[in-house]
Amino acid sequence: MAVQAGVSATPVPPAAPGAAFGPAVALSCRECGERTPLGPAFACALCFGPLEVAYELPAADPGELRRRIESGPNSIWRYAPLLPVPADVAGRPNLAPGFTKLVKADNLARELGVTGGLYVKDDSGNPTHSFKDRVVAIAVEAARAFGFTTLSCSSTGNLAGAVGAAAARAGLRSCVFIPHDLEAGKVVMAAVYGGDLVAIEGTYDDVNRFCSELIGDPLGEGWGFVNVNLRPYYGEGSKTLAYEICEQLGWRLPDQIVVPVASGSQLTKIDKGLRELIALGLVEDRPYRIFGAQATGCSPVARAFKDGHDVVRPVRPDTIAKSLAIGNPADGPYVLDIARRTGGAVEDVTDEQVVAAIELLARTEGVFAETAGGVTVGVTKKLLDAGVLDPSLTTVVLNTGDGLKTLDAVAAGPRATIRPSLDAFRAAGLAG
Amino acid sequence: MAVQAGVSATPVPPAAPGAAFGPAVALSCRECGERTPLGPAFACALCFGPLEVAYELPAADPGELRRRIESGPNSIWRYAPLLPVPADVAGRPNLAPGFTKLVKADNLARELGVTGGLYVKDDSGNPTHSFKDRVVAIAVEAARAFGFTTLSCSSTGNLAGAVGAAAARAGLRSCVFIPHDLEAGKVVMAAVYGGDLVAIEGTYDDVNRFCSELIGDPLGEGWGFVNVNLRPYYGEGSKTLAYEICEQLGWRLPDQIVVPVASGSQLTKIDKGLRELIALGLVEDRPYRIFGAQATGCSPVARAFKDGHDVVRPVRPDTIAKSLAIGNPADGPYVLDIARRTGGAVEDVTDEQVVAAIELLARTEGVFAETAGGVTVGVTKKLLDAGVLDPSLTTVVLNTGDGLKTLDAVAAGPRATIRPSLDAFRAAGLAG
Ligand SMILES: [Zn+2]
Ligand SMILES: [Zn+2]
Repeated sequence: MAVQAGVSATPVPPAAPGAAFGPAVALSCRECGERTPLGPAFACALCFGPLEVAYELPAADPGELRRRIESGPNSIWRYAPLLPVPADVAGRPNLAPGFTKLVKADNLARELGVTGGLYVKDDSGNPTHSFKDRVVAIAVEAARAFGFTTLSCSSTGNLAGAVGAAAARAGLRSCVFIPHDLEAGKVVMAAVYGGDLVAIEGTYDDVNRFCSELIGDPLGEGWGFVNVNLRPYYGEGSKTLAYEICEQLGWRLPDQIVVPVASGSQLTKIDKGLRELIALGLVEDRPYRIFGAQATGCSPVARAFKDGHDVVRPVRPDTIAKSLAIGNPADGPYVLDIARRTGGAVEDVTDEQVVAAIELLARTEGVFAETAGGVTVGVTKKLLDAGVLDPSLTTVVLNTGDGLKTLDAVAAGPRATIRPSLDAFRAAGLAG
Repeated sequence: MAVQAGVSATPVPPAAPGAAFGPAVALSCRECGERTPLGPAFACALCFGPLEVAYELPAADPGELRRRIESGPNSIWRYAPLLPVPADVAGRPNLAPGFTKLVKADNLARELGVTGGLYVKDDSGNPTHSFKDRVVAIAVEAARAFGFTTLSCSSTGNLAGAVGAAAARAGLRSCVFIPHDLEAGKVVMAAVYGGDLVAIEGTYDDVNRFCSELIGDPLGEGWGFVNVNLRPYYGEGSKTLAYEICEQLGWRLPDQIVVPVASGSQLTKIDKGLRELIALGLVEDRPYRIFGAQATGCSPVARAFKDGHDVVRPVRPDTIAKSLAIGNPADGPYVLDIARRTGGAVEDVTDEQVVAAIELLARTEGVFAETAGGVTVGVTKKLLDAGVLDPSLTTVVLNTGDGLKTLDAVAAGPRATIRPSLDAFRAAGLAG
């Protein structure tokens, strides 16, 4: 059976009680606004546009809502009232990701000439050390609600580990698909949690095509693909980055925020999260600017932004920033909209600049970022140098993953190799 | 100049204001009780016994102290009133480690037959993904107070990364010494923060001997070696594991706690932390049992425990649990004392059992531990099987590091490698 209108071939299981999705009330088309009931669907039946979660958010007093959030757990579940999850989600077996550090980066600010306050939102502190734990955590709750028994995804790294770990703790089976030629470290992370890991002879695109076939086939019955038929729920996890940044700034919007762009979903959900906080009165309604960051070797959205285009022309990725290497980003047009509407920009940096930025962040703040973090820090520096980012404004830069997962990108090593003697050390000229 | 009585050749800098060390009032000898002023010293001038930090702890109402701690930052600095650090430590540039997750491990408990509540204290959530961030954070504050300008250590891995990162953020120079044949991943982690990394042609013992020479030489003037002349302060960082476990259990002592044993320092400081909480009235005064865990390939303390000896006979380490591979553990006799006094034990597991335990923890709880975590989980299983650990009691197992740093220990990989077709997937028998 072919996949129709993004609804998986799996019959929608008996309607889950509304409580399973908290304040969420429907899926809504981002193109035409058509609403459809909460289910394992990802594309509009009318126009094939992408679906997102629609809410009836609590009409609480902002001060009271703030206090309720602040007294919640040290994880994304403190924001359960704003997410498509049950109210008791914190008590269920899950990895409780999020509420990672917002590092006040004074040393980096000095080097870059930022005077208005520079912060790094460091998502390497998540359970499997990338922001993917956030999105997967929401997808797991949706999978439970729909009665799915297998959690799945296509992945080139971070997502595979996040799904494997989350499924293990939730007591779900996992079956994850990766290209056959991944780095050994990522393969271990994807396999160690004991789920089924399947290597596909082909590229990441081949893996994705295979997963689409599987969703439409009876073989895939009872399967929740976190980034396909659970995608609307999954995507909401990225909103929590916006919530946390504002709460950690003292319930204040940042003036400028620099976000990596792979599919573009994260950037659009951060914008959605900021607008929700404004609508709820949790932060003051004032302008903010969102900046997208890509690696030059996979920069279709930056290209379109600079050319003044509304459409994004696909590219073949060639960059060390593999977690951002999506040549045909589904949310590219939305990213362009948001960057233009908020007065932001989309910029790119070369692989050499990515490595230099990883080293700059490590040297100044003791934060070892994965290549995607090198992209955002590198773009921040480039946009400051170009006068596009305003150094007098509060600026937040996202680091979405961990340098331990992209070790090959940096070539750091000893300054000297010496015999164990004071003379040898003296001769090395490092006595300082 | 030779190192005398553990006082470094560096003249003690102008006395730091008492406020620099919070409630700490002196260094005190663990053997003879002799007191000496707070300084960069590590061995008793009378008997050469190890020095530890002595306090005059606040005489606060326990309820008030609990509330003060609970309203503090989400890091070890919430316990600043109980540590040798200034009251404003949270506002200084440091990595703010700690307050890591205490994972309620219900899946693992089911597999092991534990009914009284099983928890994993998961220190892989620290900034550089090991418990070393805790101890280094305290050492950094001492280094500042003593006017040291270079932070140093000998290390085989975790500590080098922790020192490099902490020094970078604190604005201190770092110069770290490692054996020349470390794994590439650990070398990158030790070097990426931009400090000076020096590889020594020799074993870890050679590196240590070299560092002792350097401390006694004018070349080492102004240097703080976190695990040598700052060791009394450094060690106090491990107490925070005890504080956090009790607070996260609702200000309750665990009945049983399983701790890895390398030098043995961590286990002794956890015991110290638990006794302090009792003395302050923050938890009820009732018995607890502390268990030490070693790898069979480096198990001198377990050997002595089983043989009923008070002295620990050094061994030559041969185990995959490299972060525990200290053949001549300085605090071994104290570990034996504590295990016997509390009704605990010291046990060891083979490398095969370590790997199986890493996989067990990953599969049940989605926590990917380094080999030291495999040692504690493996010993927990062994002691439960032997009837030494009581399954009806609340039990906490420490995971002190991250599986990403010891990838080679596990051989996890794909279940199947297939062409991207449904037929191939069906044939692989994984459709579930
Ligand atoms: Zn539509
Ligand atoms: Zn003494």
